[in-house]
Amino acid sequence: MPVLTQPPDYSTIEKTAGRIKPYIHRTPVMTSKNLNAISGSKVYFKCENLQKAGAFKSRGACNAVFSLMEQDLKKGVCTHSSGNHAAALARAASLRNTKAHIVMPDNSSKVKIEAVKHYGGVITFCSPNLKSREETLKKVIEKTGALEIHPYNDYRIIAGQATAAKELIEDTERLDIIMAPVGGGGLLSGTALSTKHLSPATKVIAAEPAGADDAFRSFYEGRFIPSENPDTIADGLLTSLGSLTYPIITEYVDEIITVKEKSIITAMKLIWERMKIIVEPSSAVPFAAILENKENFRDKTVGIILSGGNVDLGKLLW
Amino acid sequence: MPVLTQPPDYSTIEKTAGRIKPYIHRTPVMTSKNLNAISGSKVYFKCENLQKAGAFKSRGACNAVFSLMEQDLKKGVCTHSSGNHAAALARAASLRNTKAHIVMPDNSSKVKIEAVKHYGGVITFCSPNLKSREETLKKVIEKTGALEIHPYNDYRIIAGQATAAKELIEDTERLDIIMAPVGGGGLLSGTALSTKHLSPATKVIAAEPAGADDAFRSFYEGRFIPSENPDTIADGLLTSLGSLTYPIITEYVDEIITVKEKSIITAMKLIWERMKIIVEPSSAVPFAAILENKENFRDKTVGIILSGGNVDLGKLLW
Repeated sequence: MPVLTQPPDYSTIEKTAGRIKPYIHRTPVMTSKNLNAISGSKVYFKCENLQKAGAFKSRGACNAVFSLMEQDLKKGVCTHSSGNHAAALARAASLRNTKAHIVMPDNSSKVKIEAVKHYGGVITFCSPNLKSREETLKKVIEKTGALEIHPYNDYRIIAGQATAAKELIEDTERLDIIMAPVGGGGLLSGTALSTKHLSPATKVIAAEPAGADDAFRSFYEGRFIPSENPDTIADGLLTSLGSLTYPIITEYVDEIITVKEKSIITAMKLIWERMKIIVEPSSAVPFAAILENKENFRDKTVGIILSGGNVDLGKLLW
Repeated sequence: MPVLTQPPDYSTIEKTAGRIKPYIHRTPVMTSKNLNAISGSKVYFKCENLQKAGAFKSRGACNAVFSLMEQDLKKGVCTHSSGNHAAALARAASLRNTKAHIVMPDNSSKVKIEAVKHYGGVITFCSPNLKSREETLKKVIEKTGALEIHPYNDYRIIAGQATAAKELIEDTERLDIIMAPVGGGGLLSGTALSTKHLSPATKVIAAEPAGADDAFRSFYEGRFIPSENPDTIADGLLTSLGSLTYPIITEYVDEIITVKEKSIITAMKLIWERMKIIVEPSSAVPFAAILENKENFRDKTVGIILSGGNVDLGKLLW
């Protein structure tokens, strides 16, 4: 597959699903009577925390890496990421027997660094700011000739992330609402594209921490506003939207809701406690949005993509 | 079904599975490449932490309660338990629109007390020792006429718990070994009965905390030794074997392994971290036994019943 030059249509998403199928889990959809009673709605949780490498990011990374021709892989792939995309790309590269060069901020969590190493990723550390990340990545590319795979601003990545909503819709009754958290917008864009094709009447609602509300503001002010000094425990949602994700979100997403930090912690603890699964803070943001706006979700069927489960178990947030 | 007066044969276990099917989950079996690499064996985890009320106990409790005739239920059911059986029995009783009277030690964890209340159980608190538990239960029975459902020393309970191993064996390749933790022995007895029928060549190995090794000592010394002053974080495994479970274990279990507290914590953290699921300490005891005895399990296919996921999320053990 050549690099996609336009948003993936549904046949591309279907081809993507076929391409990555051998390398990812069809993750389970879980429900909890208890959380339904608490929220007043009927929630289907798509457990991407149980995905390979612990996050939906494996979908996009596998699609991008398995889309490449053998000769494009010779010099490896690369990215800058402090999080789940880094581990997912390292894993995808190892599956194709090539190298992944990962530029990581030197304050990245130990768990994330170890995950990248576990999959054989070659780490170059940089200072924890966008400028240093980009400059360091540029040097890595100059030195290695590796191909950059951006965490979200790449249609192959968006097509990969779209397969999570595809599965969720296939595996549930008709959903009134589907929800995803929004950071860079890869998961949200993909979710919107799959949903608007498979279930056009389903509303697509994004949830975002109030302390990192650039997508919310961009969406409602009608102009791209970058993420500046975001402050949230949802460490997967710190980034700005991309030039490819922003237009898709503008066109296909119905609503963006911001939530308080306290609600994220409450939602996260409820999911751990009642569903016995570990999710990272970013995953809990959509359920937090329901808890803050119960009346708007009353008796609705809601699909939520639990984005990941990579969390430092050494320090709890409550 | 009348009260069973002999160990359940396999046709009884099959009937039990049919009886409780509408009220329990067929829990998933999970695997982790990561934990396989760490342990050197191929482990299938039967996720009873994702069972209704968070533990395998729902199987036995549902079987006992749904075995009862309408007229036997009029005065409710009762038990003494500080743990998962209490919540499971309260839930089963509520499904049959009858009352569950639960005698709980006054030092029971808040989480467990709340779970019993959530399912409508009527709690009577007692002092935290066996004498007080038994005396208080006796008074509750005198007052209410409720039927006692013992947590493990009851063949209906054993038949219920046997359905977990039945499902595990049905859902996996041939297992070299099947493992369960042992406390009172209900889960272990049931596991052994199902396994010896469905897969006679599979070894049944129990795991027990060294700090509560009454089953280990009873098994190898050939005489019943009660649990005295047990000391372990695996709070589900403090009890003595029962007069019904001990003979089944003697006859059908191949081996009992004791494990250190440190290994239980290591195993528990690995399961949380790598599998993204929450298990209680008791659940981690079999995997701890593998970690302590890697050579004996090398390259074996092993089924482990993860007994439950009810843990106080306020305090971590590591």
